[in-house]
Amino acid sequence: MEFRLWAPNAEHVRVVIDGHEHAMTAEQHGWWRADVPAQAGSAYQFRLDDGEPLPDPRSPHQPDGVTGPSQLIDHAAFPWTDSRWQAPPLAGGVIYELHVGAFTPAGTFDAAVERLDHLTDLGVTHVELMPLAQFSGRRNWGYDGVYPYAPHNAYGGPLALKRLVDACHARGLAVLLDVVYNHLGPEGNRLSRFGPYFTDRHKTVWGDTANLENPGSDHVRRFFIDNALMWIRDYHLDGLRVDAVHAFADNSARPFLEQLADQVHALAGPLNRHVLIIAESDLNDPRVVQCPDTGGCGFDAQWADDLHHALHALVTGERTGYYADFGRLADLAKALQNPFVYDGRYSAHRGRTHGRPPGSLSGHRFVVCLQNHDQIGNRDQGRRISHLADLGRVKAAAALILTSPYVPLIFQGEEWAATTPFAYFCDFQDPDLARDVRHGRKDEFASFGWSPDAVPDPQADQTFQNSKLHWDEPAREPHASMLQWYRQLIRLRRATPSLSDGRRDNVRARFDEDQRWLIMQRGPIAVACNFDQTTQQLSLDGHSQPLLQSDPAIRIDDGLVRLPPASVAVLRRS
Amino acid sequence: MEFRLWAPNAEHVRVVIDGHEHAMTAEQHGWWRADVPAQAGSAYQFRLDDGEPLPDPRSPHQPDGVTGPSQLIDHAAFPWTDSRWQAPPLAGGVIYELHVGAFTPAGTFDAAVERLDHLTDLGVTHVELMPLAQFSGRRNWGYDGVYPYAPHNAYGGPLALKRLVDACHARGLAVLLDVVYNHLGPEGNRLSRFGPYFTDRHKTVWGDTANLENPGSDHVRRFFIDNALMWIRDYHLDGLRVDAVHAFADNSARPFLEQLADQVHALAGPLNRHVLIIAESDLNDPRVVQCPDTGGCGFDAQWADDLHHALHALVTGERTGYYADFGRLADLAKALQNPFVYDGRYSAHRGRTHGRPPGSLSGHRFVVCLQNHDQIGNRDQGRRISHLADLGRVKAAAALILTSPYVPLIFQGEEWAATTPFAYFCDFQDPDLARDVRHGRKDEFASFGWSPDAVPDPQADQTFQNSKLHWDEPAREPHASMLQWYRQLIRLRRATPSLSDGRRDNVRARFDEDQRWLIMQRGPIAVACNFDQTTQQLSLDGHSQPLLQSDPAIRIDDGLVRLPPASVAVLRRS
Repeated sequence: MEFRLWAPNAEHVRVVIDGHEHAMTAEQHGWWRADVPAQAGSAYQFRLDDGEPLPDPRSPHQPDGVTGPSQLIDHAAFPWTDSRWQAPPLAGGVIYELHVGAFTPAGTFDAAVERLDHLTDLGVTHVELMPLAQFSGRRNWGYDGVYPYAPHNAYGGPLALKRLVDACHARGLAVLLDVVYNHLGPEGNRLSRFGPYFTDRHKTVWGDTANLENPGSDHVRRFFIDNALMWIRDYHLDGLRVDAVHAFADNSARPFLEQLADQVHALAGPLNRHVLIIAESDLNDPRVVQCPDTGGCGFDAQWADDLHHALHALVTGERTGYYADFGRLADLAKALQNPFVYDGRYSAHRGRTHGRPPGSLSGHRFVVCLQNHDQIGNRDQGRRISHLADLGRVKAAAALILTSPYVPLIFQGEEWAATTPFAYFCDFQDPDLARDVRHGRKDEFASFGWSPDAVPDPQADQTFQNSKLHWDEPAREPHASMLQWYRQLIRLRRATPSLSDGRRDNVRARFDEDQRWLIMQRGPIAVACNFDQTTQQLSLDGHSQPLLQSDPAIRIDDGLVRLPPASVAVLRRS
Repeated sequence: MEFRLWAPNAEHVRVVIDGHEHAMTAEQHGWWRADVPAQAGSAYQFRLDDGEPLPDPRSPHQPDGVTGPSQLIDHAAFPWTDSRWQAPPLAGGVIYELHVGAFTPAGTFDAAVERLDHLTDLGVTHVELMPLAQFSGRRNWGYDGVYPYAPHNAYGGPLALKRLVDACHARGLAVLLDVVYNHLGPEGNRLSRFGPYFTDRHKTVWGDTANLENPGSDHVRRFFIDNALMWIRDYHLDGLRVDAVHAFADNSARPFLEQLADQVHALAGPLNRHVLIIAESDLNDPRVVQCPDTGGCGFDAQWADDLHHALHALVTGERTGYYADFGRLADLAKALQNPFVYDGRYSAHRGRTHGRPPGSLSGHRFVVCLQNHDQIGNRDQGRRISHLADLGRVKAAAALILTSPYVPLIFQGEEWAATTPFAYFCDFQDPDLARDVRHGRKDEFASFGWSPDAVPDPQADQTFQNSKLHWDEPAREPHASMLQWYRQLIRLRRATPSLSDGRRDNVRARFDEDQRWLIMQRGPIAVACNFDQTTQQLSLDGHSQPLLQSDPAIRIDDGLVRLPPASVAVLRRS
């Protein structure tokens, strides 16, 4: 078996396999190589210049966690059953974001398989897994991973992940994975022992960022791009969601993000499968998804948060933190037509002009949500919007998301207004680091005006346990009604071409800022929302028939709709 | 008169005019305003929260240097004589870079006027002034300026600069100015007392960089953009050369560089004048000059160093520092057709892949040189290429630059192979800073393998004096011959459409790596260069007649050219 390692500063390198040491040969550009007998299941490490044995930066499996040896994997050995699999298009799709540890009580890949029928019943098309890279400890959101190639051991490791993906494909569900390439976690990260993976020339909130433009950066880029390709090739994933692309520091003529998207897309042909690459971006910059010929990075889609913020501020009345920039129905109306409310407009929260107009880009290039892991978890007590506002308003907001021209994303449990929070949790072993994380969360929350007491202890196992879904809830009210509402909306969206065509140019929104109602029209479909505490009677464009209504007291008659407080009706022009 | 100041953190602000204090009124976004009687010539300062009086960040004149008060200027009062002025196009032009302090013995704007006839005789079209912003001390290259709006007092200040520009225009010379927006100098910089002009989130070799994307950055951008507009509007400059655009840290959706170029170009219409914006860029990235619709910054042109490096390494034999990436005739041949030898190729010096192909961009979008202030000054003893190689080879290199498809730039004195060096000089007042600068230069030189003794003391006045041109030289040999060579080449370039058409697609270069000759063909013009120590006999494409030859022993006959060692002939196909 061939072992390769990039260690440009080492004088000599050995690979240690099941306790036996083998010298490696230096090749060009800091690479080392050895051909040594070994088989899947063998434990191995590398020794640089007689130092302590270290796991492989590209370790495919860390069965004993971040400090133990790496384990060899034979990717060819898995009995895949998805040979005819083709992912459904993202256009017209609905994404379901889940955290493997908190999705089920057991918190494993195999336990998640047991709940897939819930997702197919719900009608979503794409499952998006929060990051899986091996992190320190038993529980973590995933953004502190340090072995990007190794599916976390506590979730079940490589084989179990393949079983989950195969099971999803068997049910017609595509699988996306959240990957973190702008930094690695603070604990168990030994990459700097091997080479210049990171630079301190730019600071991120998470510390040193990946070296994408300094000496050695070709190999650092290769490290992350090969990781992306591995997930798609060896784990049959249908696409990636790249975390926080705004945090990359890269002035190079050929930006890493463009190179990454290009190489991920280049796999589609040889594999004869669709592959997606989606960015999380805070930049409100259409160039993330524009093609390289027009100066873009060539991503298929990017997250766009402004519709979330507009809805959240309106529904909850909150105006702290970034919600200070939102709250008016005019913001919501704009967000339904333009993924960037801030498209070159001054943002008081940011203290600067923000964003750029998205031009004629399709709505399919933007992923929107009413809730996601960040919006729920990065706030007091990890509270969902259904813990903050009455369910009628939440239903109205969900209806707008699921009839919008964008690609909707749902966060696990949102579909039944789960009682469980989703708080930030981690399991760092170093007490100093644990203390820093605790304090850091409290400081972050203070900036939103939340009390430090509103921060569940991120290190406590109980915080993790509390964040797990309760699977008995969906059968009970009011959860059953909410689940039915989401099912109906998703079914309507998928069955109605004018809802899933991605067109933004024909979205019309009428609203009254004082009376707090809004009617969005998309082709023949209208969504009439009353966010107010009073009943409103609104005129419709011609005769309409009701498709869905959140409240039995809604009346549609003679071109008028009568909406009780906090209610919504979805209508079709007849 | 209206005084305005951005001081977002101040509680109260006063403007002090000729010793009298006047309270300012707070306006939106951290701005302060006062309408107070004052006239041109008044000394003024600002007091924030009862602190010491400080010069205006936008001071138009610092008659007593960086620490003294600012002085009011009436820009409308200058008797301009250039009302019908239109700058010649950069396409087909030749730029002459000069340092006002070292161009003449007196080192002033007015003394420079006395030498303009030399430039018109030489035939250049654009004068490019090294930075003029008020810096600390009497002498400096200009990259340590701290009052970007104030032409340096020791050069003569605002009025004298206007006289120089007006005199240039009277002679048909356009004037470009080098401006530094990525950092300010280390001494006398009080901008951070006023507001968040800088960020430490990104490091440059010069320290903190301009805040272009954090809170308050709209006003910081305005500070620099208004400066650019001032030079063009109030000083009648024809364009700007923006220093080191690779050092900007700006991930925003609307990059500062794009905004700057856009607003500079927007002045052209109202002023009814051509205005240029040129970037110094180390990125080998065509997007600097591409239009924003294709993801570019929209600059008119950018500096491209690879042709310099290819020529310098070939002519001098040097291979240290960045010259390690060059030296082959193949590099030179590529550089004559492609401004980026490194256009996505691995650079050993940088330890990574560098650059991006320039596509079909015109040669007019790239400024090239055989020498500039950096290439001469950032090396042992500030030595020019004519101090390092025999003049025959230098003439060959100059011929290639001045017949290339790009926009050529000449550095003061290059045209007569001046004996004077151009070393780095400064005049910092703080002894600690002075010591750091001395040591920093020695460390930088060590990376090129030059002895620390090869660094002239940057703080010594003698280093500055030694760098001044000797105007008696051009009348003597070998300087007179070199000057004649440059005059002839420039005249030929400007008179020959096929040399100044910017076409890169019809550049052909034949060469022999071992015998060290190269023939470049551009339409009917051929440039045959022998860089070797032996005589070479080369075949030409058909019959040719000589236009210029560096050596009387050159023979052209029957489709052959016989080139003695280190010689060059420029030929026209007959």
